[in-house]
Amino acid sequence: MTTPRIIVVRISGRTYRDLRITTHCGLVARAFGAEKIILSQDSDTSVPKTIQSVVERFGGDFEVAFTPNIGQQLKKLKKEGFTIVHLTMYGEKLKSHLPTLRKKNKIAIVIGADKVPASVYQQADYNIGITNQPHSEVAALAVTMHEIMDGKEEEITFKNRKLEVIPTSKGKRVNKFS
Amino acid sequence: MTTPRIIVVRISGRTYRDLRITTHCGLVARAFGAEKIILSQDSDTSVPKTIQSVVERFGGDFEVAFTPNIGQQLKKLKKEGFTIVHLTMYGEKLKSHLPTLRKKNKIAIVIGADKVPASVYQQADYNIGITNQPHSEVAALAVTMHEIMDGKEEEITFKNRKLEVIPTSKGKRVNKFS
Repeated sequence: MTTPRIIVVRISGRTYRDLRITTHCGLVARAFGAEKIILSQDSDTSVPKTIQSVVERFGGDFEVAFTPNIGQQLKKLKKEGFTIVHLTMYGEKLKSHLPTLRKKNKIAIVIGADKVPASVYQQADYNIGITNQPHSEVAALAVTMHEIMDGKEEEITFKNRKLEVIPTSKGKRVNKFS
Repeated sequence: MTTPRIIVVRISGRTYRDLRITTHCGLVARAFGAEKIILSQDSDTSVPKTIQSVVERFGGDFEVAFTPNIGQQLKKLKKEGFTIVHLTMYGEKLKSHLPTLRKKNKIAIVIGADKVPASVYQQADYNIGITNQPHSEVAALAVTMHEIMDGKEEEITFKNRKLEVIPTSKGKRVNKFS
């Protein structure tokens, strides 16, 4: 299996609480192997700033982008050959589509806040629910990427890293590159 | 495989942003099959309120509790036979301990905010890192529970539910029980 290109699209609100969760979504997207997160709002610079600071220290070339129009953005991604996977508590079980999804080489994962336009459900190739219980888009994103990557996120080496954590049973071990 | 008893222990700060993330942790703990989340702070009632409202509508008997002393709490859980799994970006790969963890019938998963006392690393039976990259305790909790449960979280039936989502390919389908 070769790992797919993954882009995360985040439909977020402008409230402070949404921004915190959006930052977590961005960091998860990066850590689990996505190349980019596209945000629906650009009202606050704290999200890209926090993520950029992680990229600078821990490496890779993960990007944060913005779109003024989610519908147009999804149309564009589809044209570029991306399969659109929308995560919603109302969606189908991931298990049933996993063999198909693992064969795709371009996947856009859409995650929403409270309010997601009905059109997103229609534009999505797959609406997927992780447990069909209300919980967290951060959690849904992580489990979905973990499964699509088949655990390979643990093997990613981030280029140009200044810091690298060495897994250890007690305490903290970090390699520093100058 | 029988599913284990899981308790989540959350070391959180008092800031608003921590509280939002703590709420997500609680909802993930419930959705993925834990029986309880124990919080280190009781300065705000919004966290248990939100979680309780989900329990009332979507069922189960998930609880929120508080502890004034994390060290004492972990000692108590150990005495009761719980294996302590602390999630930290510095920890060992989950994969290497998964066969052992899947055999345990009582697991306490500890997740922290920015500041986790060094003693927690010592008290833990396992310090586990999900990707060893900085991202989100919500994500780390979800992937860890998903793996320990071996995907069985998708089969949980929540008792006394008033609402039940029926997985569907487009739109929203919800069963209402009176």
